[in-house]
Amino acid sequence: MRVGPDVTDNQHRAEAFVIAAAGSGAKIVALPEMYYCMGSRQEMLDNAIDMPGTITHRWSEIAKDYKIWIVCGSLLERISGNERAYNTTLLINPAGEIAAKFRKLHLFDVDVPGVVTFTESAAIEKGTGVTLADSAVGKIGFGLCYDLRFPEMFRGMAKRGMEILAIPSAFSKGTGKHHWTALLRARAIENQCYVLAPNQVGQAPNKFTSYGHSAIIDPWGEVLAEAGWDEEAIIQADLDGAKLRKIRMELPALEHTRTDLFRM
Amino acid sequence: MRVGPDVTDNQHRAEAFVIAAAGSGAKIVALPEMYYCMGSRQEMLDNAIDMPGTITHRWSEIAKDYKIWIVCGSLLERISGNERAYNTTLLINPAGEIAAKFRKLHLFDVDVPGVVTFTESAAIEKGTGVTLADSAVGKIGFGLCYDLRFPEMFRGMAKRGMEILAIPSAFSKGTGKHHWTALLRARAIENQCYVLAPNQVGQAPNKFTSYGHSAIIDPWGEVLAEAGWDEEAIIQADLDGAKLRKIRMELPALEHTRTDLFRM
Repeated sequence: MRVGPDVTDNQHRAEAFVIAAAGSGAKIVALPEMYYCMGSRQEMLDNAIDMPGTITHRWSEIAKDYKIWIVCGSLLERISGNERAYNTTLLINPAGEIAAKFRKLHLFDVDVPGVVTFTESAAIEKGTGVTLADSAVGKIGFGLCYDLRFPEMFRGMAKRGMEILAIPSAFSKGTGKHHWTALLRARAIENQCYVLAPNQVGQAPNKFTSYGHSAIIDPWGEVLAEAGWDEEAIIQADLDGAKLRKIRMELPALEHTRTDLFRM
Repeated sequence: MRVGPDVTDNQHRAEAFVIAAAGSGAKIVALPEMYYCMGSRQEMLDNAIDMPGTITHRWSEIAKDYKIWIVCGSLLERISGNERAYNTTLLINPAGEIAAKFRKLHLFDVDVPGVVTFTESAAIEKGTGVTLADSAVGKIGFGLCYDLRFPEMFRGMAKRGMEILAIPSAFSKGTGKHHWTALLRARAIENQCYVLAPNQVGQAPNKFTSYGHSAIIDPWGEVLAEAGWDEEAIIQADLDGAKLRKIRMELPALEHTRTDLFRM
């Protein structure tokens, strides 16, 4: 998805994408980070929402109606005082319940001249822990965009049974063309898990340009499905638990971790 | 390099490669893992060496003669009792001294039918810690081959100033074509360091087939030099400390690590 200036329109388009994916057989659907709002600091804070609240109720209804699991990209979660918001993704189950919540841990405060400049911490407060949740399609660990650069975040979850890493993103075009695919594939390979990586495309209202190339990667590091860089799209793939277990049995790297030396 | 059955011949060929690289201007030269011996368990133990000893003295002489730093691929380090040996790499400085020693931490015990089967722990004892060493070309952290799959191993060294990751390897052809380049590039990108990854090529006397594709990668994840998959070769590149520092300043991911949540 490409986020636009009108949050209501963004929400409607996101819902239409999720419903279309459900209609073609998806059991779990993931949206990109900040699909709802990506404007100025003030616009972001003005569009921070309560969880649960009106928007989460929309996703609950859709999850129930279509009997699917939804990874709600990310939304701005209101914090009292409204000086900052959390960048939060939710997992909604087919009963319409919020099954998990994850707040982005690492904030994108960078200044690479000519490539990308951004200060996420101006509007966002960082989270305080990882989230690993059970689902009917596998055990899901979460990250958001820039979290992808920090492998230590996912290792403990892999040790505790993570089978799917869902990482909604608005990963910049300037860095994405150099880093996105290599990092996604490495996370899949080293954690021997599926990676669901929906990424925004094109330019957002705040002029931030994302790389696109949403991807679904298997536990051997193969890219099962990949979107283009400039158009909105739905990509789909089958997640095969038997393949994952075979890889972990034949190449038992997660059992070879040196937890005597490195805490995970 | 491709390791052959005659350890003396392997040593001579390794020396010739290092001398040739020095002659073309190299300040640091790295050899692949197990360049000296890769045979049956008994052959490996029979060719375990003392450190310091005859072989390390050879490297010390060459380092002094050519005023270079040498990462000695890896050798089998004798352990009293001789039931197992360490898989050990050494850094030799231009004064001919052993500046650092690193023993492989993760042992390649895998059975992927039709791809690769190996039980490294039959002959090898695992090491007990990481190694980070100062050198005239930058601060060097070490890994050996299968260690590449374990990102947690390198994060603490990156936080403590690692500028170069040297990872001599005999990375299998079966897994290498799927995993080698993605993992090397990810280690360079996430740790914002140079990666020196000399890998063996072709079939060793123990029938183990390596993937080749030795590579030198920069802190932005770009492959500066890469060898082919089937022939011995010397590859070279310039390591630019200013480029590394610029990347770390503009995209300060190593400062953004959540050491409050994850120990490194």
